[in-house]
Amino acid sequence: MAEVASDPTPLISGGGSESVRRPLADSLHVNGGDGAYSYTRNSYFQKFAANVVKGRIGGAITMKLDVEKLCSRSNIICIADLGCAVGPNTFNSMQDILHFIQHKYNLQCPGSDRTLQFLVFFNDQPSNDFNSLFTSLPRETPYFTAGVPGSFHRRLFPESSIHFAHCSYALHWLSRVPEELQDRNSSAWNKGRIHYTNAPDQVIQAYAAQFAKDMANFLSARAAEIVNGGMMVIIMPGIPNGMSYSQVAASAMYEFMASSFMDMAHEGLISEDEVDSFNLPIYTPSPEDMEAAVEKNGQFSIEILELSNAAALVDGRVDIKAWVSHVRAANEEMFVKHFGGDVIDEMFDRLTKKLFMFSEQVNSGYKDRTQLLVVLIRK
Amino acid sequence: MAEVASDPTPLISGGGSESVRRPLADSLHVNGGDGAYSYTRNSYFQKFAANVVKGRIGGAITMKLDVEKLCSRSNIICIADLGCAVGPNTFNSMQDILHFIQHKYNLQCPGSDRTLQFLVFFNDQPSNDFNSLFTSLPRETPYFTAGVPGSFHRRLFPESSIHFAHCSYALHWLSRVPEELQDRNSSAWNKGRIHYTNAPDQVIQAYAAQFAKDMANFLSARAAEIVNGGMMVIIMPGIPNGMSYSQVAASAMYEFMASSFMDMAHEGLISEDEVDSFNLPIYTPSPEDMEAAVEKNGQFSIEILELSNAAALVDGRVDIKAWVSHVRAANEEMFVKHFGGDVIDEMFDRLTKKLFMFSEQVNSGYKDRTQLLVVLIRK
Repeated sequence: MAEVASDPTPLISGGGSESVRRPLADSLHVNGGDGAYSYTRNSYFQKFAANVVKGRIGGAITMKLDVEKLCSRSNIICIADLGCAVGPNTFNSMQDILHFIQHKYNLQCPGSDRTLQFLVFFNDQPSNDFNSLFTSLPRETPYFTAGVPGSFHRRLFPESSIHFAHCSYALHWLSRVPEELQDRNSSAWNKGRIHYTNAPDQVIQAYAAQFAKDMANFLSARAAEIVNGGMMVIIMPGIPNGMSYSQVAASAMYEFMASSFMDMAHEGLISEDEVDSFNLPIYTPSPEDMEAAVEKNGQFSIEILELSNAAALVDGRVDIKAWVSHVRAANEEMFVKHFGGDVIDEMFDRLTKKLFMFSEQVNSGYKDRTQLLVVLIRK
Repeated sequence: MAEVASDPTPLISGGGSESVRRPLADSLHVNGGDGAYSYTRNSYFQKFAANVVKGRIGGAITMKLDVEKLCSRSNIICIADLGCAVGPNTFNSMQDILHFIQHKYNLQCPGSDRTLQFLVFFNDQPSNDFNSLFTSLPRETPYFTAGVPGSFHRRLFPESSIHFAHCSYALHWLSRVPEELQDRNSSAWNKGRIHYTNAPDQVIQAYAAQFAKDMANFLSARAAEIVNGGMMVIIMPGIPNGMSYSQVAASAMYEFMASSFMDMAHEGLISEDEVDSFNLPIYTPSPEDMEAAVEKNGQFSIEILELSNAAALVDGRVDIKAWVSHVRAANEEMFVKHFGGDVIDEMFDRLTKKLFMFSEQVNSGYKDRTQLLVVLIRK
């Protein structure tokens, strides 16, 4: 497993995966169905990312999860995937986790005649395409299935009812755009930008504060729901402590999105004000950010907190076309809501051209350790 | 409560509700969304029907459900609505049941400082419109919510994990059209009909046998899932022991559907063979049928098994237009799949005209006690 964390082959940067999971801001969701820009057909970067940490998660379950204790009162193990979006990644992750838990149980209780039963809760916003999720479920699953609609920044499950929670490429979506960014008189009014890449400190601080608030709500809800000794795994984009986001290769995506929109504003296709008032509710935390949130909550012990290479399994240079498709699958609705549907093709066309034109910048940006893995145990 | 069961005002017959819940045959479901023929806007007969039995269910919970025992190991009460379709009826039913259970707990454990937590599982076929269900959930619910995709003729939940199961206007949908009816050489080939109304004995027997098989699967799955002492409530169309289905007012719907299709076949709009090979997978059991199924399963005790007036709260004569809209909301997709979408408007137009033309027959048919209420306790 250690070879994954230290793998020296950064290829598709964290940005590839960073931008492609469903937003958790009100009623935003990844593209459903199975069309050209659907999340189902544009989420294979996330799959690579998940594979990179699979071994680490297996190791954590084997070493740290006391399955015998978890099932001492009932043989039902409840697993939740928080921000699951649509298949197939969530099905693979759940299958892997179930397999690791079963394996650990067999190690702990060899020859036991009890059979574990698994109930998997697939959670996402009510506006997620649960119809697609349910109709694409594998034909036979070794678990019982339930879908849970709701924001994971709030309570979703009864107290002490979840044994294992998983949250992959979802927590970087903030619950909302920071309030200060909506106020044109604030020093955090984000003129000419759509993200905190290359933004003044006030903007960065507003994003960081919103992330801290969201994490506080998230952890407090999970602390109530997860049984003592239960485990939570968080996988998300990350950035080394102290590094500025503009050094990360993925920042080019936001920078060129903003400049594409600004070009369009200068040509009169949209207004500058529309650009100034739009901000992507996405934050990439450092291990330090995450540690602070967990310490503040106080109800989890940190078993793993590390940055790794998200796309160590993908070979070659950044595939710009695929990257843009992925970003589009996850973000399109948010743009359409703000700018209207007519200009979105235009923006993505311009964005793609800019990324190709500046592909050296994209490929030379920092992309080594941009995936954060956090494994927590409920105290 | 007794006044409900003996209410002498049968107005919208069991047929009104009988025909309007989602079919459980493969991938069939009620109309989603909120358009003119959506189930959401065409399921108020079911609401009346549910209200009629609400008092009986409350009484059964108060008298027969040992809530203190159910929550002796955990304060989480799991309720399942099997074949829930889309809102709002299922939300109302779940709210009522939760209220009755909480009330019984307060009676049994006055002054207890434990707070019950409720988890409600909304179950229906994977093709049900769960997106509509989830986005129309009441803003605040006193329960946690999960959707469970799958046929209730099979296992849906872990062993001994459900405390209360509810199944309203769903079990009359057979899991499939009886096999014999698909074979043109069989004596049960249902020429010129689409249901067992006025059909030869072989056809009726094929339907009855399929219902018995489905009930066996349903009860065996539920026996595994419901905890000892847990309750199951079934509400569905019913018919007095020994009565022929053609005496029931609701049979006019099937009879005139068939004759509308046959008229269209004679005019060359569809083929006769299309009509002969189409059969509605709907069966209306007698209390005797139901008792036999429960006895055969052997794992439930029968607390209530009775016929009541489904639409006692609806005043006046049958509202034919509304009835047809309700039937359309639940059945349209099944017709479209078999006959294609083009002829369905035509059939429903003809059906409506026939029902108006023969409204005396509709209004004079038997409609007194056509709703079956079954309350079972898991032994």
